[in-house]
Amino acid sequence: MRDDEKYTNSEDQLLHLQNLLDDPDTTALKAYFTELDILDIARTLESFPAKTRDFLWEFIPDELVGAVLAEVDEDIRADYIEELSASEVEQIVKGLDAQDVAEVLEVADEAIKTSVYDSLDQDIRAQVENLYAYEEDVVGRYMDPETVNVKQGVSLEAVQRYIRIHHLLDDESQQVMITDKDKRLLGTLSLIDLIKQPQDAVVDAHMDDPFTLNDQMKVSDAAVLLRSKELPFVPVCDSDGRLVGQLNAADVLEITQDDTDMTLKHLSGVSNEEEVFTPVLRSAKSRGIWLGINLLTAFLAAFVIGQFEAALDQIVALAILMPVVASMGGIAGSQTLTVVIRGLALGQLAGNNVRWLYNKETWVGMSNGLVWALVVGLIAHVWFSDAMITLVITLAIFINMSVANLSGVLIPMVLKKLQIDPALSGAVILTTVTDVVGFLSFLGLATLIIL
Amino acid sequence: MRDDEKYTNSEDQLLHLQNLLDDPDTTALKAYFTELDILDIARTLESFPAKTRDFLWEFIPDELVGAVLAEVDEDIRADYIEELSASEVEQIVKGLDAQDVAEVLEVADEAIKTSVYDSLDQDIRAQVENLYAYEEDVVGRYMDPETVNVKQGVSLEAVQRYIRIHHLLDDESQQVMITDKDKRLLGTLSLIDLIKQPQDAVVDAHMDDPFTLNDQMKVSDAAVLLRSKELPFVPVCDSDGRLVGQLNAADVLEITQDDTDMTLKHLSGVSNEEEVFTPVLRSAKSRGIWLGINLLTAFLAAFVIGQFEAALDQIVALAILMPVVASMGGIAGSQTLTVVIRGLALGQLAGNNVRWLYNKETWVGMSNGLVWALVVGLIAHVWFSDAMITLVITLAIFINMSVANLSGVLIPMVLKKLQIDPALSGAVILTTVTDVVGFLSFLGLATLIIL
Repeated sequence: MRDDEKYTNSEDQLLHLQNLLDDPDTTALKAYFTELDILDIARTLESFPAKTRDFLWEFIPDELVGAVLAEVDEDIRADYIEELSASEVEQIVKGLDAQDVAEVLEVADEAIKTSVYDSLDQDIRAQVENLYAYEEDVVGRYMDPETVNVKQGVSLEAVQRYIRIHHLLDDESQQVMITDKDKRLLGTLSLIDLIKQPQDAVVDAHMDDPFTLNDQMKVSDAAVLLRSKELPFVPVCDSDGRLVGQLNAADVLEITQDDTDMTLKHLSGVSNEEEVFTPVLRSAKSRGIWLGINLLTAFLAAFVIGQFEAALDQIVALAILMPVVASMGGIAGSQTLTVVIRGLALGQLAGNNVRWLYNKETWVGMSNGLVWALVVGLIAHVWFSDAMITLVITLAIFINMSVANLSGVLIPMVLKKLQIDPALSGAVILTTVTDVVGFLSFLGLATLIIL
Repeated sequence: MRDDEKYTNSEDQLLHLQNLLDDPDTTALKAYFTELDILDIARTLESFPAKTRDFLWEFIPDELVGAVLAEVDEDIRADYIEELSASEVEQIVKGLDAQDVAEVLEVADEAIKTSVYDSLDQDIRAQVENLYAYEEDVVGRYMDPETVNVKQGVSLEAVQRYIRIHHLLDDESQQVMITDKDKRLLGTLSLIDLIKQPQDAVVDAHMDDPFTLNDQMKVSDAAVLLRSKELPFVPVCDSDGRLVGQLNAADVLEITQDDTDMTLKHLSGVSNEEEVFTPVLRSAKSRGIWLGINLLTAFLAAFVIGQFEAALDQIVALAILMPVVASMGGIAGSQTLTVVIRGLALGQLAGNNVRWLYNKETWVGMSNGLVWALVVGLIAHVWFSDAMITLVITLAIFINMSVANLSGVLIPMVLKKLQIDPALSGAVILTTVTDVVGFLSFLGLATLIIL
């Protein structure tokens, strides 16, 4: 059993390493990293602030540094590569596969990139070149270009022998591709069938007609597809139907995971790159942008309030209750917004479904609006014993919550039409709407009815 | 090539089905579902409101209904099973594996459950019983109890022959387990090595020493581990080291995905079960709870404002600017909260790292607080030309943003200590803090300095 098995969760592992760091013992630290695999090392590095991380790099076995680099967050990779000379980077990428080499070189300066590029094995260089030929967000950039290809009419036994002689499968292989002489994909044969089926059968008899992806498809769309179909891998073909590689679910599931993570961050005004251990300055700067945008929103709301100075001057209860109206609308709207953004991400919103959703949210908004308007009205009445104030706040809550739910659908749908990511700016726009509508309806009604 | 390949994304597929539904054509609808696999059908059903969904069930091939039921969201499964008699459920679970049977029966009434249970094949019943013997949130409940086991000392060739004779591998198999006579796990042999290595070698020569999980481990912890180690499967052993099944990453990745999704929903005040197509009443009710909790928060804030009637009565600018203070603190706090909650979910926060984080957020809070306090102060000065108001709002923004960032760390850490999910109540508590501190510091300073 491997040593890391004794850690039932990563927090224990983290504490153990921190103990080693408290009184740094070079031998123990080296031993610690020798026992971990590449992914464990990457996750460990991501769990420390930059200063400690720089110290930890020293104890990672030299032959693993390249693979670990390809695995860690891009920011961490860039910080590490920045400090290295061309010959050090050359050393690091030696033995990596094309995908990993491409990841590492991507964050290097142009000068280093070119120099390392020239030092690569011809095979790897050609593959890296192929990957770089794709746009950054398409399937071709994420696929594994190496696949095991066999011809039609071959027996399973022959395929097995061929694999053994040429040492063909790698750790992630799950199938063999059957192609014609032009490398056009005819079908796939799973390793399971390769073992399970009679060995004198020909590959054609047991090949599956696979779902395939075009190499120019957006990788985020591909990720959603693979996830919804729970496929472990998909062959990738170019527009002529020629097999060019395969996309592994493991790489792509990370993208959908990151997608939800990104939505979460964006809705809270955090940039996509920020993690717990992002340094102070970088965090402060990236959050500052969102705070600035929010400031515009807040002052727009303040400006709306400013239009009703007369009312506020006469009735202090308005100032006291006004945040309640904005807050209830804000929550109602963001509930809807979150559900709609998830629905959009899952591709569930098209055609008639959208109309159905508008109807639903109108009803939810109006019914919840009614219930909570009455509750708030009652509390306000007990507090201020003023029928006019009760009337005004009841109406305002109802209006703001109804508008909020409808905006929660309308805003992301419009943003999507405009090709803007709804998660990115949806929350800010929504808050602006619920603040403005809330203050406008509450103070406006008060001016009309009471003054 | 399969027919669904022509849909490059699920939205197109959705629109195509909606076209078929506009003028329902029974034959075309039946044909549509015949061409989809189980997962596609499940995702399709989840993409329609309840009424349409009930209609669509009719067109799903009878032999697939059980597997589709096991795959759809729990709410949808429960709605469907509710309408069925015991003998209909019996029909549906026929041919399903133990995991799927357990999923379907879980949502049925006790009476139906017992009756169907008695009708199951002995083998499946024993396996289902084993699954039910586990708590709902542990690895044992989620594992696949069927594995391919071989003894030490057997040649690869013999293993292949054994698999062929007994038809042993299923679609998800990726390895063979090597066990001793007490079913204790000695190692695993990947299908890749089973094919690639010399066939006269014995299994012992090529077996891996696998990472294993205990069957009583929390499944959410297991999910984090599998994800961070990118393992496609892990053998599961009981506390005596006996192999009891295997946990597949595909099942578990859904859990981590759901976890981020849940955090996203909870931070926005949406319950975990709500999807786009949750019916109006259910949505309104589940969101109502969060609106009610928010109302308490909002009135607490209103109460704080109410303590400063005198100040508000004399200076109307206070009422106008007061939401700006609360809003800037709210955003700053929720930025921190989101990053911290993600860090907790990834198990990155323990020991020294926590202290580092408090330091970081203090600095980010104070530096961003200073910058934006000056900006807000400047705008307020231009607007109201009142040095006292400028001073008060500048100080209040600085205080509120500094406190907000610190609370963004403190609140989730305390909730975690109290064993409460930080995502569930963190946002509400944080808003309460930023509203109260914001109004208190702004109006309190105004009272002290100006009045």
